[in-house]
Amino acid sequence: MDLRKYIRDVPNFPKEGIVYFDITPLLADPAAFQYTIDMMAEKFSDYKADKIAAAEARGFIFGAPLAYKLGIGFVPIRKPGKLPYDTVSVSYDLEYGSDSLSMHVDAVSAGEDVLLIDDVLATGGTAEGMIKLVEKAGGIVSGIGFLTELGFLNGQSKLNGVPNCHLVTL
Amino acid sequence: MDLRKYIRDVPNFPKEGIVYFDITPLLADPAAFQYTIDMMAEKFSDYKADKIAAAEARGFIFGAPLAYKLGIGFVPIRKPGKLPYDTVSVSYDLEYGSDSLSMHVDAVSAGEDVLLIDDVLATGGTAEGMIKLVEKAGGIVSGIGFLTELGFLNGQSKLNGVPNCHLVTL
Repeated sequence: MDLRKYIRDVPNFPKEGIVYFDITPLLADPAAFQYTIDMMAEKFSDYKADKIAAAEARGFIFGAPLAYKLGIGFVPIRKPGKLPYDTVSVSYDLEYGSDSLSMHVDAVSAGEDVLLIDDVLATGGTAEGMIKLVEKAGGIVSGIGFLTELGFLNGQSKLNGVPNCHLVTL
Repeated sequence: MDLRKYIRDVPNFPKEGIVYFDITPLLADPAAFQYTIDMMAEKFSDYKADKIAAAEARGFIFGAPLAYKLGIGFVPIRKPGKLPYDTVSVSYDLEYGSDSLSMHVDAVSAGEDVLLIDDVLATGGTAEGMIKLVEKAGGIVSGIGFLTELGFLNGQSKLNGVPNCHLVTL
């Protein structure tokens, strides 16, 4: 199945001159969505994983079904102030400015292998933040799986050598 | 399986005097998370559904795996400004103030049955907003499924008679 057909190009979002790759047609198509999760299960299960972690909001759409399918616990990574229990947090750089991510302190045990999932590898800022967060909590990032990679943005340079793969190159 | 055991009571969150029911231990436990999705599939499949829709961010954690399992397309409902294509939006009342939700205009076709999913029915504000949104887009809300219901907050009064059920009463 050619998943690229289910990704819609939306011009001028979030700002003039940018083409945004909209994954909602893929989500709306039952066969395409099931195929996506099944392919992630097949391709990403080379990475050892005691937990699957993903960042809000779009990361949850792929990380949670994959955790369900593989029978692995799911860890939500959130913006600061959203998680009720004690948290560990990191800041990371974006193209303009910076952002922060948080995780519960007991979400990952020391030495646990964590598979990170996100919808897209773009500039790599969010992925870099997720890696730092899991490592700060004592976990080991065994791999990162993306639905899509925007190769021309060179997000790979931010992944610090962590093994990764994706289903669709844009 | 008693899912209540996997929900942690966190006192004084988001503010003094409130007890927050934290579902992250349930997500972290593979058997509890799989059981939750399987039970949702069993209990909520009485509601006819052409699409499953859920609001960011926690709704995605249950709505997406359920859509995957049942082989139904998934529709993300988001805060305004997050979705790239043309949207339909509604405002809804919260205990203090109001909030808004958006969905792509082509996410639901006229007359389609939509099953709404969320983690918790509390005061019912978000659920009411989701119902209004799907109806504004021309869809029919066939049912709403929650992981938990905080019965003492009487969120049922906001659901406008839409059939609903939940797995855990708090």
